[in-house]
Amino acid sequence: MDILERLTAVEEIKQLKARYFRSMDTKDWAGLEAVFCPDAELDMRGEAADKSKAAEGLVIGAAKIMPFIRNAVTDLVTVHHGHMPEIEITSPTTAKAIWAMEDLLRWPEGAALKTLHGFGHYHETYRRLEDGWHIQTSTLTRLRVDIT
Amino acid sequence: MDILERLTAVEEIKQLKARYFRSMDTKDWAGLEAVFCPDAELDMRGEAADKSKAAEGLVIGAAKIMPFIRNAVTDLVTVHHGHMPEIEITSPTTAKAIWAMEDLLRWPEGAALKTLHGFGHYHETYRRLEDGWHIQTSTLTRLRVDIT
Amino acid sequence: MDILERLTAVEEIKQLKARYFRSMDTKDWAGLEAVFCPDAELDMRGEAADKSKAAEGLVIGAAKIMPFIRNAVTDLVTVHHGHMPEIEITSPTTAKAIWAMEDLLRWPEGAALKTLHGFGHYHETYRRLEDGWHIQTSTLTRLRVDIT
Repeated sequence: MDILERLTAVEEIKQLKARYFRSMDTKDWAGLEAVFCPDAELDMRGEAADKSKAAEGLVIGAAKIMPFIRNAVTDLVTVHHGHMPEIEITSPTTAKAIWAMEDLLRWPEGAALKTLHGFGHYHETYRRLEDGWHIQTSTLTRLRVDIT
Repeated sequence: MDILERLTAVEEIKQLKARYFRSMDTKDWAGLEAVFCPDAELDMRGEAADKSKAAEGLVIGAAKIMPFIRNAVTDLVTVHHGHMPEIEITSPTTAKAIWAMEDLLRWPEGAALKTLHGFGHYHETYRRLEDGWHIQTSTLTRLRVDIT
Repeated sequence: MDILERLTAVEEIKQLKARYFRSMDTKDWAGLEAVFCPDAELDMRGEAADKSKAAEGLVIGAAKIMPFIRNAVTDLVTVHHGHMPEIEITSPTTAKAIWAMEDLLRWPEGAALKTLHGFGHYHETYRRLEDGWHIQTSTLTRLRVDIT
């Protein structure tokens, strides 16, 4: 790949991740599913409050990722922001990146939890399919999480 | 436009929006006015606390936008951040974008309001004039607003 | 420099600053030192709580910047995010930028301070050495700082 193709891929992956955040927070489920590869892996094992159930946080396949996310956020007001990507294009069809992130979750009245305010990094890989770049794997690590 | 011209325009629009945020928060009014087209439209109708006055939130023309913004923020400490732009160049002189955003407003002691902390998206269009890109239209939608 | 070389340099400086934030918050001290020029200048004079000691906030040379930063943040949980860069490439080996920023610091139990939540701008210059771009000078100005 020449440098222009690399810069183009970097911008396309920034916009891919932007669609991930926007479709998540506006609950555009079709838009969210479209950002993942069919065989994508979402690794949220570090998020488990009950460590004995952490294994459930590794979800494989867009068809399983979607109900996992919908179940987690449908009733909540969510805000997810990404920052400062370090994107590396590793071949014409593969790439990886680290993103800083912040999320705010607000549960509805009466829920066991009220709010979560967290900070961390997404460690991701991407694959270019016929219709453009998609998220292949995504693992979240945390700097800090405040829960009320 | 070739791909290099498009990538250049994308970066120029990112820096245009950066000047919008920085000049707003540092109260650089000349710098802020310069980001708008002369006939720009600012649509903050969704922001109205009193819905019967929402129509006043649609402001047309940079000459009217500037006193609208100055009146809203001159006495406040403001922080506005933009994130995760999805910029599409639609012609050599037109473009559109969605930006995630967060804002924090702090009113002076004794004001009726104390703080606003909000999250949402700017939906914008841009036009390239002789001296570069400017904001043509800007509409703010909200995910969440907390007011004290 | 042609436009492609400029766009490449802009993306490289974005990733340089991303490594600054990520290595700071994950306490990767070797990674953090690598972002600075050997003769870098870090100007945090505006951060001094005790204005009579403000001069100590100007630190010159990566070898002095590193213990300065480590001393400031080793015991803390820190989150630093950068936003909305305005990067200008001023020659093949020099550049400057303004970045919006937000930081959250949390001191350990028992410390005199509990938390700092701040907002402002980094005003920076960069220099391209044999192994790529590095931070030459960095000055932090503030819009707002909340300390508990």
